[in-house]
Amino acid sequence: MSNDAYTPHEDRLLPADPATREIARTLYERMRDQPIISPHGHVDPYLLLDDEPFRDPTSLFITPDHYVTRLLHARGVGLAELGVGRGPLEEQDARAAWRLLAEHWHAYAGTPSRLWMEHEFHQVFGLETVLSPRTADAMYDEIAEKLSRPEFRPRALFDQFRIQVLATTDDPTDDLAAHEALAADDTFTGTVIPTFRPDKYLEPARPDFRELTEALGEAAGQDVDNYDGYTAAMRARRAYFKEHGAVSSDHSHLDPGTARLEEAEASRLYTEAREGRIDADAAAALRRHLLADQARMAADDGLVMTLHPAVHRNHHQGTFEKFGADVGADIPVGVEYTKALAPVLNDVGLEPAFRVVLFTIDETVFSREIAPLAGFYPSVYAGAPWWFIDAPDAILRYRRAVSETIGYSRTSGFIDDTRAFCSIPARHDMARRVDAHHLAGLVAEHRMRLEDAADIADASPATHPREVFRLDGGTAAEATPATSAKKEN
Amino acid sequence: MSNDAYTPHEDRLLPADPATREIARTLYERMRDQPIISPHGHVDPYLLLDDEPFRDPTSLFITPDHYVTRLLHARGVGLAELGVGRGPLEEQDARAAWRLLAEHWHAYAGTPSRLWMEHEFHQVFGLETVLSPRTADAMYDEIAEKLSRPEFRPRALFDQFRIQVLATTDDPTDDLAAHEALAADDTFTGTVIPTFRPDKYLEPARPDFRELTEALGEAAGQDVDNYDGYTAAMRARRAYFKEHGAVSSDHSHLDPGTARLEEAEASRLYTEAREGRIDADAAAALRRHLLADQARMAADDGLVMTLHPAVHRNHHQGTFEKFGADVGADIPVGVEYTKALAPVLNDVGLEPAFRVVLFTIDETVFSREIAPLAGFYPSVYAGAPWWFIDAPDAILRYRRAVSETIGYSRTSGFIDDTRAFCSIPARHDMARRVDAHHLAGLVAEHRMRLEDAADIADASPATHPREVFRLDGGTAAEATPATSAKKEN
Amino acid sequence: MSNDAYTPHEDRLLPADPATREIARTLYERMRDQPIISPHGHVDPYLLLDDEPFRDPTSLFITPDHYVTRLLHARGVGLAELGVGRGPLEEQDARAAWRLLAEHWHAYAGTPSRLWMEHEFHQVFGLETVLSPRTADAMYDEIAEKLSRPEFRPRALFDQFRIQVLATTDDPTDDLAAHEALAADDTFTGTVIPTFRPDKYLEPARPDFRELTEALGEAAGQDVDNYDGYTAAMRARRAYFKEHGAVSSDHSHLDPGTARLEEAEASRLYTEAREGRIDADAAAALRRHLLADQARMAADDGLVMTLHPAVHRNHHQGTFEKFGADVGADIPVGVEYTKALAPVLNDVGLEPAFRVVLFTIDETVFSREIAPLAGFYPSVYAGAPWWFIDAPDAILRYRRAVSETIGYSRTSGFIDDTRAFCSIPARHDMARRVDAHHLAGLVAEHRMRLEDAADIADASPATHPREVFRLDGGTAAEATPATSAKKEN
Repeated sequence: MSNDAYTPHEDRLLPADPATREIARTLYERMRDQPIISPHGHVDPYLLLDDEPFRDPTSLFITPDHYVTRLLHARGVGLAELGVGRGPLEEQDARAAWRLLAEHWHAYAGTPSRLWMEHEFHQVFGLETVLSPRTADAMYDEIAEKLSRPEFRPRALFDQFRIQVLATTDDPTDDLAAHEALAADDTFTGTVIPTFRPDKYLEPARPDFRELTEALGEAAGQDVDNYDGYTAAMRARRAYFKEHGAVSSDHSHLDPGTARLEEAEASRLYTEAREGRIDADAAAALRRHLLADQARMAADDGLVMTLHPAVHRNHHQGTFEKFGADVGADIPVGVEYTKALAPVLNDVGLEPAFRVVLFTIDETVFSREIAPLAGFYPSVYAGAPWWFIDAPDAILRYRRAVSETIGYSRTSGFIDDTRAFCSIPARHDMARRVDAHHLAGLVAEHRMRLEDAADIADASPATHPREVFRLDGGTAAEATPATSAKKEN
Repeated sequence: MSNDAYTPHEDRLLPADPATREIARTLYERMRDQPIISPHGHVDPYLLLDDEPFRDPTSLFITPDHYVTRLLHARGVGLAELGVGRGPLEEQDARAAWRLLAEHWHAYAGTPSRLWMEHEFHQVFGLETVLSPRTADAMYDEIAEKLSRPEFRPRALFDQFRIQVLATTDDPTDDLAAHEALAADDTFTGTVIPTFRPDKYLEPARPDFRELTEALGEAAGQDVDNYDGYTAAMRARRAYFKEHGAVSSDHSHLDPGTARLEEAEASRLYTEAREGRIDADAAAALRRHLLADQARMAADDGLVMTLHPAVHRNHHQGTFEKFGADVGADIPVGVEYTKALAPVLNDVGLEPAFRVVLFTIDETVFSREIAPLAGFYPSVYAGAPWWFIDAPDAILRYRRAVSETIGYSRTSGFIDDTRAFCSIPARHDMARRVDAHHLAGLVAEHRMRLEDAADIADASPATHPREVFRLDGGTAAEATPATSAKKEN
Repeated sequence: MSNDAYTPHEDRLLPADPATREIARTLYERMRDQPIISPHGHVDPYLLLDDEPFRDPTSLFITPDHYVTRLLHARGVGLAELGVGRGPLEEQDARAAWRLLAEHWHAYAGTPSRLWMEHEFHQVFGLETVLSPRTADAMYDEIAEKLSRPEFRPRALFDQFRIQVLATTDDPTDDLAAHEALAADDTFTGTVIPTFRPDKYLEPARPDFRELTEALGEAAGQDVDNYDGYTAAMRARRAYFKEHGAVSSDHSHLDPGTARLEEAEASRLYTEAREGRIDADAAAALRRHLLADQARMAADDGLVMTLHPAVHRNHHQGTFEKFGADVGADIPVGVEYTKALAPVLNDVGLEPAFRVVLFTIDETVFSREIAPLAGFYPSVYAGAPWWFIDAPDAILRYRRAVSETIGYSRTSGFIDDTRAFCSIPARHDMARRVDAHHLAGLVAEHRMRLEDAADIADASPATHPREVFRLDGGTAAEATPATSAKKEN
């Protein structure tokens, strides 16, 4: 039935104006087939270590993806119906969830989730129909059938996707056994590296702060009774991560504030926190100090800090209690970077080994704070739009907000930040198309030479993020920012 | 004189790129002649009940419209010269005010007020000249002449405008006699419904709080000496409004904060407020509690809450004292929704009967807070741009800011929010054109199928807002959000 | 080598769509050759008084321009290598700095700095190559050679640039000798006027507040032991500036807050501040009062206030200590205007002689606060995008954010705000092109008549800013806002 036929247009996301589109095409062509560098994301490393087939279309596309489940939830579908918070679904329930998605598919029109999934349906699974109640079962069956084939196992897809580097996000106490095993496995030639994510060990207000610090100490083989021990344990675990290939640490607190306390004060508050008698203000002060400590450590070990602040997690307590974290009830709040980072940037902002990438969902800081900071401090990079704003129009707004101050060279390169493994190539492809769109507009308006746009396009997918995230081993010792700047495109 | 000739272009507000415009035309065609649903506005119901002819062009287009008078005021024209704060103007003064508008008309170029008025001049009054000092008198005369004809009386225009539902905004103590009389009048076939607007009864810091609550109690036949009585009176008045066709309550405080107090504390503060001895902080705390109470009532009676916060009313005190409220001296401030609404959304955010539409003039919250909230909570909808940003570029920014998270289905549909009766069709027409513009861009860039855009266009003017505002009677009992979601386009 | 050839395209910055570009061309043509009015900037008046040749390309284009040096710094180039904080550079060092710029030139692609400089290279120096390591020396040599010619001296360029009025920014204690000498010099026919910039004399928290006020008093011949003396000194210096042609005062505090204290309280705090024993809160309160005083003075003397708030100056303390102020380490923060200006606007907002132009780097206030304020108060104008956002996309965002509320007539007109003398025509040309781009879009979408756009274009470069900044002498006495409004296009 002709109305069901659908394949994504080869010019999707490129500008409508014919002459501008022509320019965008030539730029996109330069990026399209480049490898994927994914320096920050949430794929489980055991997915690749175990290399088990994906169970079914629903567990692949719906249940674990809060981008997808949250809109269904907003439209009245219960999260449990989608498998959230349940174990593996029976075939009947998985199919029912898939049909619910199909029924609501029209409501995803214009969202990146739909564009990503349609890319996956077509590029990965070879489907040529649009999802609808009419086509849902046939599409389910075809995907399910393909998932049983060897070429649809995670490692095969990893290769097919041309993923060169994939960073996971890991707890500081993680033994990184999966990463170690993957690195030791001669049959797997990809690079999967961990990322140090110490958030909860920096939140002295948590009731389990003592248990957390104990676990950290145990992982580090370090007594953590006092602040010095805690700091040593942190340093040890960062070193352990670095030995296992980590190039960055990730930090996602409600506010990105940093402020150093006197060491004695920090010690005292640490002890109070361990004893569960710290008050909220002191806990916030200690957290800001501990984050400043992470920056100092980064200035020593060269792990790139990525900041992802200002999300009110688990906004709906009842949903959190029933379904856990990361199910769609996280809502952003405003963020402030200029004052928040002044202490850290005054401390280590000009240190050659220190580097920090600033992410935001609050778009107001792109032109006001992030671009000005990244346009002065050699250590600061403007992170690509994150989460709700990792979407075509928002990416264009980002490029237009920051490029006039810092061009492309002081930006992070694209970050997929996803736990949806199959969406990785779709997301990178979208970013490349949108960058081509943006650059083509500049060329068409004679604001940038085609040669310069082409150079940016060439470097953008791989060379540039490898550089920003020091994936080729550069840190203070080997490559100062000045040197590295010279290597860029 | 050819320079005076002017009629609005039939493709106005559609994209300039020829191929995209072609798509936009087909989408606009689907919306153009649909009926008007106006679920929130400020037209006086007696306008339709009395059906008196409009007095003159000035009292129709200038004096009561602060969108128009404020820019003249900024350009040095005194509000009194425009009739503000005076009774009906003599013909000579009305004409003088009209000439002032003509003299400054060039300064309105590019504003929605001018686009709306030019639409009205042409579509409603059949004029084919541009307003200028040269044409002012002739246009005044022609409009004045037509206003005396029966087909230019309010009810005739109501029909001509194809208004299906018009909501007014009313005080909780209003007896709704006008609405009752209109409903009982067989010669009037339109639907005019009230909206419950209890703002001032929720502001315990007002010096007249006792008098206000007494009036509320009187209207409800309910003793309001204590908080329980006040609450009962509120519930009674909401029920009275609902019986008279109301589908929503409207709330416009300086901040949209909500937070529940202990009932005993609320009782105590209510009594303090009644006795005029509440301090500012306590008054704010009680107001936030009372607004949270309104949400609980909404979760019971199913009236849709609309929030219009964060306007510094009567910014210039002298103007307020001389001319009263609503004369253009209201200036927006920033707003925060994520934390502000957490108490209410944790309380009733998943209740089937609860529904809240979030409006803003602070555009920063569209992508950061409103879309994420409306993309998780089944009860939350993203309101159309309000007041200063009810304008083409701003509407495009809104669509681009929220659609990537929530598509069109979680938005409110267009709200004219006007007291300028004749501008209603012009405003709805502008919104339809701008939506066509936005959707056509997505189609032209192959980000949305034409079929999906057409479905959205079909539902957008009438079906969708009827659904969001429960104009067909759906509430918790009859239609859960899940069910209603399935019915959407 | 063909790859090196480059001249800026004559249609640069105009829209890509062919029909829209055609409209933009006709509008730009109307503006292109108009004189330059520069009512706010930072050129040193001695540059024109002394009329010495520029020393070399580096001291002309790089060292003093923090727009240029900051991005190089972010890319790892030391400020000292660029001559910052050093005296005049030897030829070898100047050339080395130039080569550094050439090496990093690709990173400026898409920035306004590059567009401005390429305009200057071509229009002022007749160069037809792109800057690169390959062309750096030849371009350096050619510019250096031309700088030695009489027609490249500052006064000759002033004429060639068609600058009609150039405002400098000056300390209240400045004797304005340079301005006086220029005015008296029959061989110089341009107009160079001072601007009163009293910031530091309004910051009671400064440790040198006593010395500053003493200096102010000395300049005014006025005892400043008490607040009344200080006020009299301020009035005297404002009068002195006005006698020397000043039309405005400029104010750039961290926040734009205004609030009147009781006079006795102001007196008391002034004395505390002079004695170095004022605390931070009291100092802020006094500063807000003193700024409100400036507004009162403006309501008397008619100097137009320009507000440039909300920049965290010298964000990196080490850089400030080593290189001084204005070297790129200034980072914006959020701003709030609605509440901040309420005291002043209630006080003098309707006074005929009072006028204030609001600038911002925080774009969120354009549609939310600045346009609504400028659309009601006859005294308020919306300033053109400032500093980091004086750039094509940002200017378009500004026009789209404010025009729908206030059109063009309540905006400031373009402000170059630069210390880079040679960039003045490039900056004005960019602004004209971008306005043509914006207006053409409105015309192409039939949102504005071509006639109206042409009228705006005609008035925009010169007539309009002359009016806003009272360059033709109009103040309360001679021309009320109402009258002046009538004169506009």
